[in-house]
Amino acid sequence: MASPLNVGLVGFGNIGTGVVRALDANREVINGRVPHPVEVVRIVDVDTSPRPDTAYDPAILSSDTDGLLADPDVHVVLELTGTIDFAYELIERALTGGKHVVTANKALMATRGAGLIRIAVDNDRCLLFEAAVGGGIPLIRTLHQGVAANDISAVCGIINGTANYVLTSMSDEGLGLEAALRRAGELGYAEPDPSADVEGIDTAHKLAILATLCFGQDIRLDDVWVEGITRVSALDIEYARQDGYAIKLLGMARRFDDGSVEARVHPTLVPECQSLASVGGVLNAVRIDGNLTGPVVLIGRGAGPEPTASAILSDLMALASGRAEGGLRREMRLCVPRAPKRIRPMAELRTRYYVRFGLSDVPGALGQVLTILGRRGVSVASVEQPAEHGGEYAHVVITTREAREADVQSALDEVGALPISRTEPLILRIEEMD
Amino acid sequence: MASPLNVGLVGFGNIGTGVVRALDANREVINGRVPHPVEVVRIVDVDTSPRPDTAYDPAILSSDTDGLLADPDVHVVLELTGTIDFAYELIERALTGGKHVVTANKALMATRGAGLIRIAVDNDRCLLFEAAVGGGIPLIRTLHQGVAANDISAVCGIINGTANYVLTSMSDEGLGLEAALRRAGELGYAEPDPSADVEGIDTAHKLAILATLCFGQDIRLDDVWVEGITRVSALDIEYARQDGYAIKLLGMARRFDDGSVEARVHPTLVPECQSLASVGGVLNAVRIDGNLTGPVVLIGRGAGPEPTASAILSDLMALASGRAEGGLRREMRLCVPRAPKRIRPMAELRTRYYVRFGLSDVPGALGQVLTILGRRGVSVASVEQPAEHGGEYAHVVITTREAREADVQSALDEVGALPISRTEPLILRIEEMD
Repeated sequence: MASPLNVGLVGFGNIGTGVVRALDANREVINGRVPHPVEVVRIVDVDTSPRPDTAYDPAILSSDTDGLLADPDVHVVLELTGTIDFAYELIERALTGGKHVVTANKALMATRGAGLIRIAVDNDRCLLFEAAVGGGIPLIRTLHQGVAANDISAVCGIINGTANYVLTSMSDEGLGLEAALRRAGELGYAEPDPSADVEGIDTAHKLAILATLCFGQDIRLDDVWVEGITRVSALDIEYARQDGYAIKLLGMARRFDDGSVEARVHPTLVPECQSLASVGGVLNAVRIDGNLTGPVVLIGRGAGPEPTASAILSDLMALASGRAEGGLRREMRLCVPRAPKRIRPMAELRTRYYVRFGLSDVPGALGQVLTILGRRGVSVASVEQPAEHGGEYAHVVITTREAREADVQSALDEVGALPISRTEPLILRIEEMD
Repeated sequence: MASPLNVGLVGFGNIGTGVVRALDANREVINGRVPHPVEVVRIVDVDTSPRPDTAYDPAILSSDTDGLLADPDVHVVLELTGTIDFAYELIERALTGGKHVVTANKALMATRGAGLIRIAVDNDRCLLFEAAVGGGIPLIRTLHQGVAANDISAVCGIINGTANYVLTSMSDEGLGLEAALRRAGELGYAEPDPSADVEGIDTAHKLAILATLCFGQDIRLDDVWVEGITRVSALDIEYARQDGYAIKLLGMARRFDDGSVEARVHPTLVPECQSLASVGGVLNAVRIDGNLTGPVVLIGRGAGPEPTASAILSDLMALASGRAEGGLRREMRLCVPRAPKRIRPMAELRTRYYVRFGLSDVPGALGQVLTILGRRGVSVASVEQPAEHGGEYAHVVITTREAREADVQSALDEVGALPISRTEPLILRIEEMD
């Protein structure tokens, strides 16, 4: 029997216990595929009370982080603390102390990942983070190996299960946002405070990680334009459906020929014939556009202990396969940003738009709006004004031909300032995704 | 500059020239990601005439296979001949001669792959075949690495672009099979002789390869139950749609708890809400069911020179990354069937069925059919008999609850022998794919 790969696990919560349970359940499969068996030899958490339904030796659970880091028999630190500053310091100490690190920490990787990757490379160690994006969908390995021969021009996807569940419930059952979110909470699909999910922050974290890997620039959360789904209504979903679109919270990044990168998160109208449109519930999906493969779409469970454990264990197996001696450390170097960062301002975006206004129901109101759009060079593709509407103002929904974000924004600022304007205009973007 | 990985390419047709062009176009991307640059140093084909629009040194193109195999400077043989016996011998000679092999030859791998893999392992060489299944979709690497921690219970998918294009055209435009196939030929999506595609043989080849990798049994073409799409009519597609299903040619394999494996290819009714149902045109899609990840679906272009080149180049890059020194050769051993083959007879299948009969339009005809089904223990879920039908007989469409294949087959044999029977009954299977 070959010597084991010894793992020191820090953070023994939902995901940490999930990894221990998955390793226990699949031990035969895993150790049949790698030369060094994967063993968890130390577990650290502030809470050292016994965990039910999880097979581990209670003697290895302590709150002694220093002891774990100082233990020469720990080869890999598995960081599952869900913190930022503590996790950064832990990972830095592990890497400089000669240990490999596996983490599922998307917030950390999206904000300070490039620095940690440099520390890993400088210390000739591996820092693996497959579980930080897309849960059980093997995205990072696909980028580094499966489509490695391709020049990647774009990456986009549905990478927050909570927001997708909410939008799917609104679409399938006509629920409002609040009701859909309440249901998601009841089913365990939403955190008690779901704001990072519905406001797009979590999606932006993951997009920053993906865009950095795809384009080799150090793209961080701050570089991503973020709009959440909180203003999307059942009415918008119904209008979109009539035109053959689903509304999805997408993270999208693409690189232009001049090397500049556009990275944005917002609710998006996606044609129903596209694969992403039919990805419902808590599923995640990511599309990678390679110049040889064309679009490749990967769909799967983006969260939860078992899918996350699948990703974490695949990282541990990569280390246990002996690949850390060569290929894997070289792959680490590919994660180091190698090009200067050039973020394209959102104002320069060109796409099609869906805009909803609330206007006083007076003759000529629509004419004033269309005149303003025309003056800003925004061409209208369709106008809809429901025949029936209760209350004191009318909803107007306009879709545009391709237009420039800056022009649309200025036009809507102007519309919003009109005396006939009754609600802040809602802007959604339409992506045909050919 | 590190020493190059020298490739000897055998078979300089559509795919071979595609690889050379892709390597030329993406040289910077590829060589930026691997320590050893990938170089094509010899090309062999019976046709040595110049190839247009392809950058290669004419001096390296010859018909000298022996010379290529004898050249110690050729590290990898890239087999793209599309033959069986010639390719087998070529690959065997290359492996025993100390060279690695990359191939896109699905027919060869589905019929004699296990033997070649053993030769590779015995000679401590790699035989890589990512391009043999799913074109530009990185399936084999996903199985070996991305979902490596999972016990795989099932794999299924749309893995023939021609058949999928035909079914999509029939569905979207109401074309008949002949017309759809003619269109596919005109667009270059079907071979002059499309029988292997529409009769399911090509799908079965790829399924055999996938099932062998997923379940570790030596599953060959002969072990797969194969039905093609030639008897599916626009009427069936319309009926299925009314019930919320799309008809897709699926390859499906799953392993039961007793270790037996079921492998089948046939047109299948798939719920429209499932990802596979919306995969249209020439796209391929594969779903892998892992016990941790749950279902993971990969969608992309399954054929064509560029996607195929993407897969071939990813194999060459795996070799050029130095992984052949360790991890990759260990992965080869994972390809060797390790469990005795136990194929579950098709008669034992339990699923739901869609059956179409042509019956004489006489009173009591339907009653006779339902009586026979009932006697065989086949419960009916729905019966439809179009109100309008020209001609001398009536179409009757029956869907069943879950039933046993043997019972359904016996019942239909009995129905087919009735004097009122006017057409051979058509059987399609319904898979809910939860």
